[in-house]
Amino acid sequence: MRTLGIQEIEDIALGAALLGAGGGGDPYIGKLVALGAVKECGSVTLLDPEEVPDDALIVSIAMMGAPTILSEKAVGGQEYKVLYEAMSQYLGKEIYAFIPIEAGGVNSMLPIAACARLGLPLVDADGMGRAFPELQMVTFTIGGIEATPMALTDEKGNSVIFRTVSNKWTEELARAVTMSCGGSVSVCLYPVTGAQLKQYAVKNIVTRSQRLGEAIRTVKDAKGQTPEEHFLEFSNGYKLFRGKIADVLRETRGAFNLGKVMLDGIGEYRGHTAFIEFQNENLLASVDGEIVATVPDLICLVDMETFHPVTTDALKYGKRVLLIGLTCFGMWRTPAGLELVGPRYFGCDTDYIPLEERCKGGLGHV
Amino acid sequence: MRTLGIQEIEDIALGAALLGAGGGGDPYIGKLVALGAVKECGSVTLLDPEEVPDDALIVSIAMMGAPTILSEKAVGGQEYKVLYEAMSQYLGKEIYAFIPIEAGGVNSMLPIAACARLGLPLVDADGMGRAFPELQMVTFTIGGIEATPMALTDEKGNSVIFRTVSNKWTEELARAVTMSCGGSVSVCLYPVTGAQLKQYAVKNIVTRSQRLGEAIRTVKDAKGQTPEEHFLEFSNGYKLFRGKIADVLRETRGAFNLGKVMLDGIGEYRGHTAFIEFQNENLLASVDGEIVATVPDLICLVDMETFHPVTTDALKYGKRVLLIGLTCFGMWRTPAGLELVGPRYFGCDTDYIPLEERCKGGLGHV
Repeated sequence: MRTLGIQEIEDIALGAALLGAGGGGDPYIGKLVALGAVKECGSVTLLDPEEVPDDALIVSIAMMGAPTILSEKAVGGQEYKVLYEAMSQYLGKEIYAFIPIEAGGVNSMLPIAACARLGLPLVDADGMGRAFPELQMVTFTIGGIEATPMALTDEKGNSVIFRTVSNKWTEELARAVTMSCGGSVSVCLYPVTGAQLKQYAVKNIVTRSQRLGEAIRTVKDAKGQTPEEHFLEFSNGYKLFRGKIADVLRETRGAFNLGKVMLDGIGEYRGHTAFIEFQNENLLASVDGEIVATVPDLICLVDMETFHPVTTDALKYGKRVLLIGLTCFGMWRTPAGLELVGPRYFGCDTDYIPLEERCKGGLGHV
Repeated sequence: MRTLGIQEIEDIALGAALLGAGGGGDPYIGKLVALGAVKECGSVTLLDPEEVPDDALIVSIAMMGAPTILSEKAVGGQEYKVLYEAMSQYLGKEIYAFIPIEAGGVNSMLPIAACARLGLPLVDADGMGRAFPELQMVTFTIGGIEATPMALTDEKGNSVIFRTVSNKWTEELARAVTMSCGGSVSVCLYPVTGAQLKQYAVKNIVTRSQRLGEAIRTVKDAKGQTPEEHFLEFSNGYKLFRGKIADVLRETRGAFNLGKVMLDGIGEYRGHTAFIEFQNENLLASVDGEIVATVPDLICLVDMETFHPVTTDALKYGKRVLLIGLTCFGMWRTPAGLELVGPRYFGCDTDYIPLEERCKGGLGHV
């Protein structure tokens, strides 16, 4: 058990945005929401998963929709209470604590804001260990846990409770409502017991985000290493490419941000070209036509100077970026994991090959 | 209080399909659902609105979506129980009785099936006195009554509860879910007290449907009148046209059946042409380019020989039909009523003129 104050939140936002793998929303917006809540209502208690009673009710809280839309619509602040009450009333049990559903600039921050405003603790765990675009893509689904009852609310005050026959149906129906509500809403889902949480969640992800954020913040202070060497070391990152954003193709469809970004190589990558495809999150990266990383491994772009993560909603022509890969949580590499979030699910015509295999001796490691 | 058995149901299905004004679904399908339930579980008690206690909870039950899709998907039978439990649990009060939300071949039958299967009475009232395509189009909306909490379920077992800031938002969100569920679902909405029911509902609509159905069934037995004269007399119908269906344009969009039908005149209408536009229900009828009737008045097509109603999902090239107009429930002719369901709401560029004015001396009354 420890306390999350201003500096912790700043670092978590930064680190979680890296783990967001391009998705999870703008860490600046996320930070504002969490800092605002903590300044107004006091700091938040972070519980280790082992501190949660086995029969406690733990619920994920998140924004659903296209991150680009969230930046314009933002969130009100009434949403958390509406969601809390809808879930507690429906389940007939008080919520013990919230968890983030995923790591990301916004979705690791909203749960902190919700906890601050409702006086609840946050548990140091999530359902992805990164960000994914669809709501059935959580380790809980692998554990056979239902996404519903799920509560959804928008900034206007509409609210909806779903109870579905599968987590894919939850995604389908909640996505339709999200689009009708303008493309971005707040949701509360995957009610789990403390025991289920300990078995299936990705543990200590808030702490990992915070450590990554701290390290990014202090990357220039490294002794005896270049900042880039230091960044790759503390993040356990595989360097895949370095380049200038030469083109961004982007569309918002089905409350997703879809698109492609092209990088022209810089430095040791001069003359080479990289492509990254995304659906909210980066799905696949290729260099000179050869795939260097795919989901579920994390494909991340960071600013070449500051090493701050560049989310897909902030891609801009001319920006100089470093492309890195991070290995995903082990459960995603099982057959059940790959069925949910492997490259073929997203329409990429390739089998999953672990990042570390793909990178062996390739241009990725010049 | 009286009992609805087999013959009553047959007649209600027929008469309500006429009041469905082209919408409300296929009376044959509706009848099968209601008769199946009554044969299995026993007949249904029909209450007069005045027999309902003022504080009783009364709820509308209906199918939502495109009638053409309903004919293929049908309904399971588990839906009523799911809806009943979702509503009762959410409101913390037992449902006293169901009412139909509208008159129509399917939507006057589903409530009978639900009442039979759950052992509840039906109240002789609805929210439209005809059928309309969108769910905010009920007299309850004029009375400031909320459509939500509303429960929705599909044949797969998915269920959703809505709580919205306006009845237009209920329509918006429920329509999105209906489309995602395949275009046709069962819903339970407009929870009202007995007192509200007595003040705002269209009363005795089940009985009116039954009388109309009886009369259609026995139209050939009229003495001293042609069947057509007899039909127009008992239905209080304005004869607008008689013709052969020469063309049907049809599309299913947004879980609505949209389209247009063209009639070539027969008999006294030879050489003339009529058009009818519909969105599930018939919205506007014109003869030789001149409007003869618009919503909210009822525009109905019936078979020229049998006087059985022809719903928009059953329009077929070559069919010979009589086009008639029926005056709508008085509340629809108020400014608040016309704002909800007047011709301009449906994109028809004309003010509402009551049917009886439009028909004065026109070709409609040759």
